[in-house]
Amino acid sequence: MSSNAFGKLFTVTTFGESHGPAIGCVIDGCPPGLALDAAEFAHDLQRRATGKSRHTSARREADEVEILSGVYEGLSTGTPIALLIRNTDQRSKDYASIGQQFRPGHADYSYWHKYGIRDPRGGGRSSARETTMRVAAGVVAKKWLRERFGVTVRGCLSQLGGITPNGFDWSVVEDNPFFWPDAAQVPELESYMDALRKSGDSVGARVHVVADNVPPGWGEPIYGKLDGELASALMSINAVKGVEIGDGFASAAQKGTEHRDLLTPGGFASNHAGGILGGISTGQPVTASIVLKPTSSLRLPGASLDTEGQVIEVVTTGRHDPCVGIRATPIAEAMMALVLMDQALRHRAQCGDVGHVTPRIPGKIDG
Amino acid sequence: MSSNAFGKLFTVTTFGESHGPAIGCVIDGCPPGLALDAAEFAHDLQRRATGKSRHTSARREADEVEILSGVYEGLSTGTPIALLIRNTDQRSKDYASIGQQFRPGHADYSYWHKYGIRDPRGGGRSSARETTMRVAAGVVAKKWLRERFGVTVRGCLSQLGGITPNGFDWSVVEDNPFFWPDAAQVPELESYMDALRKSGDSVGARVHVVADNVPPGWGEPIYGKLDGELASALMSINAVKGVEIGDGFASAAQKGTEHRDLLTPGGFASNHAGGILGGISTGQPVTASIVLKPTSSLRLPGASLDTEGQVIEVVTTGRHDPCVGIRATPIAEAMMALVLMDQALRHRAQCGDVGHVTPRIPGKIDG
Amino acid sequence: MSSNAFGKLFTVTTFGESHGPAIGCVIDGCPPGLALDAAEFAHDLQRRATGKSRHTSARREADEVEILSGVYEGLSTGTPIALLIRNTDQRSKDYASIGQQFRPGHADYSYWHKYGIRDPRGGGRSSARETTMRVAAGVVAKKWLRERFGVTVRGCLSQLGGITPNGFDWSVVEDNPFFWPDAAQVPELESYMDALRKSGDSVGARVHVVADNVPPGWGEPIYGKLDGELASALMSINAVKGVEIGDGFASAAQKGTEHRDLLTPGGFASNHAGGILGGISTGQPVTASIVLKPTSSLRLPGASLDTEGQVIEVVTTGRHDPCVGIRATPIAEAMMALVLMDQALRHRAQCGDVGHVTPRIPGKIDG
Amino acid sequence: MSSNAFGKLFTVTTFGESHGPAIGCVIDGCPPGLALDAAEFAHDLQRRATGKSRHTSARREADEVEILSGVYEGLSTGTPIALLIRNTDQRSKDYASIGQQFRPGHADYSYWHKYGIRDPRGGGRSSARETTMRVAAGVVAKKWLRERFGVTVRGCLSQLGGITPNGFDWSVVEDNPFFWPDAAQVPELESYMDALRKSGDSVGARVHVVADNVPPGWGEPIYGKLDGELASALMSINAVKGVEIGDGFASAAQKGTEHRDLLTPGGFASNHAGGILGGISTGQPVTASIVLKPTSSLRLPGASLDTEGQVIEVVTTGRHDPCVGIRATPIAEAMMALVLMDQALRHRAQCGDVGHVTPRIPGKIDG
Repeated sequence: MSSNAFGKLFTVTTFGESHGPAIGCVIDGCPPGLALDAAEFAHDLQRRATGKSRHTSARREADEVEILSGVYEGLSTGTPIALLIRNTDQRSKDYASIGQQFRPGHADYSYWHKYGIRDPRGGGRSSARETTMRVAAGVVAKKWLRERFGVTVRGCLSQLGGITPNGFDWSVVEDNPFFWPDAAQVPELESYMDALRKSGDSVGARVHVVADNVPPGWGEPIYGKLDGELASALMSINAVKGVEIGDGFASAAQKGTEHRDLLTPGGFASNHAGGILGGISTGQPVTASIVLKPTSSLRLPGASLDTEGQVIEVVTTGRHDPCVGIRATPIAEAMMALVLMDQALRHRAQCGDVGHVTPRIPGKIDG
Repeated sequence: MSSNAFGKLFTVTTFGESHGPAIGCVIDGCPPGLALDAAEFAHDLQRRATGKSRHTSARREADEVEILSGVYEGLSTGTPIALLIRNTDQRSKDYASIGQQFRPGHADYSYWHKYGIRDPRGGGRSSARETTMRVAAGVVAKKWLRERFGVTVRGCLSQLGGITPNGFDWSVVEDNPFFWPDAAQVPELESYMDALRKSGDSVGARVHVVADNVPPGWGEPIYGKLDGELASALMSINAVKGVEIGDGFASAAQKGTEHRDLLTPGGFASNHAGGILGGISTGQPVTASIVLKPTSSLRLPGASLDTEGQVIEVVTTGRHDPCVGIRATPIAEAMMALVLMDQALRHRAQCGDVGHVTPRIPGKIDG
Repeated sequence: MSSNAFGKLFTVTTFGESHGPAIGCVIDGCPPGLALDAAEFAHDLQRRATGKSRHTSARREADEVEILSGVYEGLSTGTPIALLIRNTDQRSKDYASIGQQFRPGHADYSYWHKYGIRDPRGGGRSSARETTMRVAAGVVAKKWLRERFGVTVRGCLSQLGGITPNGFDWSVVEDNPFFWPDAAQVPELESYMDALRKSGDSVGARVHVVADNVPPGWGEPIYGKLDGELASALMSINAVKGVEIGDGFASAAQKGTEHRDLLTPGGFASNHAGGILGGISTGQPVTASIVLKPTSSLRLPGASLDTEGQVIEVVTTGRHDPCVGIRATPIAEAMMALVLMDQALRHRAQCGDVGHVTPRIPGKIDG
Repeated sequence: MSSNAFGKLFTVTTFGESHGPAIGCVIDGCPPGLALDAAEFAHDLQRRATGKSRHTSARREADEVEILSGVYEGLSTGTPIALLIRNTDQRSKDYASIGQQFRPGHADYSYWHKYGIRDPRGGGRSSARETTMRVAAGVVAKKWLRERFGVTVRGCLSQLGGITPNGFDWSVVEDNPFFWPDAAQVPELESYMDALRKSGDSVGARVHVVADNVPPGWGEPIYGKLDGELASALMSINAVKGVEIGDGFASAAQKGTEHRDLLTPGGFASNHAGGILGGISTGQPVTASIVLKPTSSLRLPGASLDTEGQVIEVVTTGRHDPCVGIRATPIAEAMMALVLMDQALRHRAQCGDVGHVTPRIPGKIDG
């Protein structure tokens, strides 16, 4: 029931600060028999990594995962899987000057008011460095979902500042540093980001994430709904200020005849619902979008206060992403995978492994 | 850890179906000494009630709350507070025809696939009737928050179909059946809804909700963040497809210098953040918006399937809201109050009742 | 995460005070398709009931269960099952005099110090009246365990004051008011209890409870062990001061060669372990014993204090059991059933419905 | 809600196998401002360590704690505190022969049936090596309880095989390798253990543990009672088969007049209750006893089966404790401290930091 843990049955507890000795997580509830190797984490961690392109923070971390427990002779044993990554490229001195300052728009202020003490180095616990472990845990969830149910999760950037995709092609998303679905726009994004970085400012973004092949029936009404858990999971990502499922906010202006997904013998005729009705998956792709605010750590000065209440002007000199949304794609995928994995286990706990798409025969217990 | 329970320390477990004998809830974790009377629930339940105007469902429920436990001589005792409301205006026969049919866009389909059995009368457990108990529990949370911290929570409709407020005046919100913040637009809304009802169609909406006087420091990073819990709470409301905090999706197009709230001796100079940084309250008003999809139960026919997979055309004849968003305002308020109450208790568990806005003196334990 | 809820996946939340309008529970997580009828609760509730014989409290309660939700056309639907019992034989005036007094050995004292307020009528929430709902919820768990796995749970009294069974015969347990396994001793127990009641004193007891046909593999190491959960469940019963599994405290004087259960092709050669190794069921019968202290509400005066700290002499005049252990048998059975049901669901969440007694084939995911 | 996590608000998640690369834990919920240094863990870890005397396992572990997170400049920050200990003295080849064998009385059998796969090296996750992290986490809890409330927790061995203490003197407990409260008996214990070790057999034991200065009011009825949580915590220790509070099983033969603790102006006149009434602390010392079964890993052969169901004779050649109870004292202390810490936080969440020993003034909210 830890606040640093996510998931009811597939429970991921993360720990670690941006500039502490290490970050890590404990995954509890992984089914036994899943093949796992430390090398499998590299791909998604690399996708999330800072320093992948000039458009993200210059911090370089090896992000080498050590599996400390829960795997024996290459297979999960059902016991907790602990993963550890040592921090190697901290530059804590960058933050010496802001230890007593509140950066406008940063968690500095709220952490200090909550705890009366905070680790100012790189944002401490509030740093997006923590999301590394979400991605690592997501690798485990993604693999089990894929092997057990054929479920796949993928994401892309769907807005960067004022720019939105002209076209949409999943096949190009992994080929550019922005996870952008229209290859023709990449030069425009490059120029935009170069100018932004030069200006010292930052910008917001949107990320879209989709899970395919999710069976109908996952999600627990009323307060453990699939969309409710997705909302919590995605909103918990650093800088996220909004979450949509399916048509999301566009639904406000829609008519019922326009929004409802008609059912045909070949399946649903559309997917305005984003694959969820009443908090339970329908078998359609599960779709969600999130918005990430612009980074608050800026080289451009901003009026603020220090811990003594004195008026100051804050300038941040550490290494930061001018658009945190760019690297948020694999993080959002990971959070969706964690939610689906958890719901998969919750579903079979209550409804059993088999038979849940066939109506119960009255009086017969097969659940 | 029930999926029909909400909150970690102020835990509300709800039960009941739309057309069952009763709906109810159990509130566990209410501090002792709070004065509570059954009559106190009437105001908010009336605000949420169906049948308040011709623009909502014609179902008429007395919604009389019976306090079954946890209150002795008018005061909460610290033990579970159980609230019960008998259902009195069920018309189950309205639903006989849809027992084997899936209404497009309705939880019928997903409940049946999950459980293999469902109560079709009025949507059963997936009905918005359940939200009555959220509002009831919210009354308790609102009262404690107000008496203990001066926190108040209020909401309004901020979009109805394509209509948005021209002006904004909290003082008129409770004076019209739409919780609309611009009195001059009410006639337009009346006409719009009359035409919509006549057409047999439904429409989506947006609701805005705000908490004032929330102290800084509430919210538990990383997976129990204040915004994460709000997202989960608000997304769990029937028909909600999106949740925003502060500037929400508009943040995607903002620059960092535009979004960040500067700090002045008089407080924050703006509130783009919606009162939350790093998942912890800042002392600014906590603001959120939600979108509700258009009702899926329509008199206009829609292509669908029955439980045998046969092609059918569905027409819904029960009593339904043409715009569920209209009555969602008190529900959204209640969910925000439940989240804040829970976080208030969680905060004082870890950080203590007093002293949390003063920095810790090193080596001294006051937490 | 309510403190008045028990179970992680089969979650039972109880509410109600001894002399309040009603007691009840909400069962969340029951698999769909289980046939349930209000009449099924009568048998175990009758076994637990006060007033079954002259050896228990004279309070007479009808204990009629109303199913408020979660059951449609006689079958569980997977949604919360709420059960309600109205209190009908309260005599609150019996307790007027003790509202400001602390009965030695009674929860009066600790509730008052915790909450600063308490419901003195019949012990309020601390009354064994609450256990009625445990027994009711246990009926649901027992039925599912029996129908799904053939698991049965039964109990008996194994000590009353200084008296222990001379013989042991399960077939006579239900035929005497003491749940005693040796029919020949019943007259002795009758005389003992008559004299005790006359004296105004009370006495302690032991209860033994056994579950047969529990499959191997139930129980979650490390902090959700089957024996850990049983200990919590059984210790939470009013007046319980100790819990043993298998040989329990006798193990202190045993050698390893004496305690260990040898394995033969026909199964275990003995059951010192009580069916649990490493917190996981072995397939042997699961056995536990509990001790219940003597009732603290006595007609014999005892030195005490009142809420003002004044010295008083307390005499209790309400209706009380001279030996609460007598009626504890069905309660202990219920708690064991709740634990097993919860662990059954937890097991299939992580390890799947099928195949868990066959070793995993390396690299193959069947969990 | 991980099964490898303990505590609702002070949550300790442990991970690691006996012969894996490391063991560790994540403590979530520690109040900010607590001074913590890696060196502080040495004392209790040394008390628990194997190899402290010839009477315990010969395995030698340095048990050096690394603090990975949650502490900044020597003070806890309120974020998760991760502790790591590398395993250094594994001898996995000792266990090669038993990979396909079930040791009678050992968790080998049940883990294999649950998961279909197990780490046989040194008992894997079921090894008492895991308790190292309980002791480490207990150090944090003990310190906070002592500094914040003056609560102290201590324990001793109270039975070893058939031997019980003749006298009782807390001051000698730490001066002998048995945590024995009567110094005069130590030579007898030494001889007994030497003979036992020589014989190849093992023996059971009892441990007694006491917390002083616990304020009244800690503990959450009904299913989060202080004694219920203690029972769960203590039963979860490896090899424990029984838990008692206060007079425990002796209560079965007691009269009410004998068991109840009379109240005097100077406090309670006795402590049969073990400091807990109705699941809530009374202000008396909180006392508990546990029994530990004899170790199942023996050099003396025992009839068993292998994973193919073939009859075998098992002999264990690894390094094992002939009496696991001897080293259980600091583990039991740690578990009691974890329970008390958690309940302290839970209490102040619901009832506030101050005022909880004064009755509420009706209508006034101070909780």
